[in-house]
Amino acid sequence: MRSLTLDQVDDLALGATLLGTGGGGDPYVGRLMLRQAIRTHGPVTLMDPDELPEDGLVMTVAVVGAPTVLLEKIPAGTEFVGAVRALAAYMGRDPVALMPIEVGGCNTLFPLATAAEMGLPVLDADGMRRAFPQIEMTVFTLAGIKASPMTVADEKGNLCVFETTTNRLGETLVRGAVMSLTLANSFSSYSMTVAEVARHAILGSLTYCTDLGRHLSAVQRGESGAFERFLEAAEGTVIFSGTIVDVERLTTEGFAKGTVTIETRDGSDRTMQIAIQNEFLVAFEDGEPVVTVPDLICILDAETAEPITTETLGYGQRVNVVALPCAPEWHREGMLDVVGPRAFGFDLEYRRLGA
Amino acid sequence: MRSLTLDQVDDLALGATLLGTGGGGDPYVGRLMLRQAIRTHGPVTLMDPDELPEDGLVMTVAVVGAPTVLLEKIPAGTEFVGAVRALAAYMGRDPVALMPIEVGGCNTLFPLATAAEMGLPVLDADGMRRAFPQIEMTVFTLAGIKASPMTVADEKGNLCVFETTTNRLGETLVRGAVMSLTLANSFSSYSMTVAEVARHAILGSLTYCTDLGRHLSAVQRGESGAFERFLEAAEGTVIFSGTIVDVERLTTEGFAKGTVTIETRDGSDRTMQIAIQNEFLVAFEDGEPVVTVPDLICILDAETAEPITTETLGYGQRVNVVALPCAPEWHREGMLDVVGPRAFGFDLEYRRLGA
Repeated sequence: MRSLTLDQVDDLALGATLLGTGGGGDPYVGRLMLRQAIRTHGPVTLMDPDELPEDGLVMTVAVVGAPTVLLEKIPAGTEFVGAVRALAAYMGRDPVALMPIEVGGCNTLFPLATAAEMGLPVLDADGMRRAFPQIEMTVFTLAGIKASPMTVADEKGNLCVFETTTNRLGETLVRGAVMSLTLANSFSSYSMTVAEVARHAILGSLTYCTDLGRHLSAVQRGESGAFERFLEAAEGTVIFSGTIVDVERLTTEGFAKGTVTIETRDGSDRTMQIAIQNEFLVAFEDGEPVVTVPDLICILDAETAEPITTETLGYGQRVNVVALPCAPEWHREGMLDVVGPRAFGFDLEYRRLGA
Repeated sequence: MRSLTLDQVDDLALGATLLGTGGGGDPYVGRLMLRQAIRTHGPVTLMDPDELPEDGLVMTVAVVGAPTVLLEKIPAGTEFVGAVRALAAYMGRDPVALMPIEVGGCNTLFPLATAAEMGLPVLDADGMRRAFPQIEMTVFTLAGIKASPMTVADEKGNLCVFETTTNRLGETLVRGAVMSLTLANSFSSYSMTVAEVARHAILGSLTYCTDLGRHLSAVQRGESGAFERFLEAAEGTVIFSGTIVDVERLTTEGFAKGTVTIETRDGSDRTMQIAIQNEFLVAFEDGEPVVTVPDLICILDAETAEPITTETLGYGQRVNVVALPCAPEWHREGMLDVVGPRAFGFDLEYRRLGA
């Protein structure tokens, strides 16, 4: 048991932007909410599964929708509490803790703010340890844990509850509902026992995220050797350095899709293209895939070391592309079906980073 | 209190096809289900509101989806019971009776079959006394009665619960869910007290429907004067007689939309065009609107007096177009906003039939 205090929020948020791999929603709004919640309710308690009763119920809470919309629509905090309370009411059981569904992007921070407001601890664990664009894309799905029952709530009092035979169908129904509501809504799901979290979740992901954020922050302050320490902590590799020469983006079917093209500026005449579906999914160098989902592709501003998101990509930016390996918990049976390149419609094989 | 027996099912189904005004789904499947349910569980008990406790809870149950799909997908009876039970579980209260949301089309019969299976009576009342394509198009909406909470169930165990601030948003969410499920699913909604039914519903609509079906059946058997007696009972008028010369149909956004064109065959060179959105909505004679929604437009085969649905419309059919006034309960404040021509996107005024 440890406390997440106000002075750790910036590192956590920076790490969350990095693990958002270009998507997952800008943590800016979540950071404001979390700061406010900690000021009002005190530090958030982070716990490991062995600190809670095995049969206690854990729920995830998140925003679902297009991140480009989220930037324009500040969520009311009550939505998140509403989604969790509705799920608890539907199940007839209160949670002993909340948990992020994804540690990466804005959904890293909302559960912490919600937990502070509800007086609940947060489990230092999640289902992705990066951002993914779809609800079923979790290590929980690999373990056969149902996302159902799921609740979607908005700030006006509209509420949806879904129980589905597959997590993929849950994604479809939730996405459809969000399109009919306000395009970015709060969502509570993946209720499971503490024992199930211990066995199947990615453990320590909030700590991992805060650590990477702290290292990256040191890089941003210009500390000597900080970039090397950051890469070491992240097991990261710089796979490309260059200038953004083209950005294609459109918001379609609730997703932000597109491609970013980067060219070297050292005269070597190499090109990297990165395919986007809310997040950076596949990096191609001169047409060959070099990093593939679920491994992480992060684009850092070459000057400031700020992680660049799909919304802030711009022509002429000088960038470093850093690849990080996905959480080892992903390397379980069924991973490729759930988050491999083909799950996103790419006709190519997964190439394990560093393998 | 009275019983709906096996020998009344055909009249009820024929009346339901007529009041479907071309849509509402073919009652064929519902008739089979109802026959089977009565054979298994005995006659269905029909009740008036004053025969039940005022504070008892009444629920509607129906199929929602595109009727063109319904013909290809026989609903499993368990879906309907599942939708009702899910609504009861969500509300924590069992219904004392079921009620059709619409008396017109297949949704006239499913509640009767479901009630037989659940051992519940059915209230001789509904919210439309014709078919309408959208959930919010009820006299209940005029009275401020919420369709929420609503449940959508399929035969595989998928379930959605919606609570919405407006009935129109409920329609949008339910339609979206059905598009993601199997395009025609069972739906329970509009829970209200018996006292609310007494005050706001269209009363006696199942009896009205069976009466019209019995009269029309007499016409079909060729009984002398039967057509005049049918028109008298229905307060109906033959507004056009001719031959179908064109049918345009497409299933889009979950609705069957189109136009049917009928020409006189008496040399008078008149043309009627009828606009379809699941049901026949507006009849134009030589370009002028002569019957407008919510009044009913029914197309009868000139030979057999069989009501023709949008699915069975065909080139060369000789038909009589009969207009019936909508239930008088529709003539309340707000009617035009909910079911007037403009609610369906027609830029024209409602012309009250016979006015």
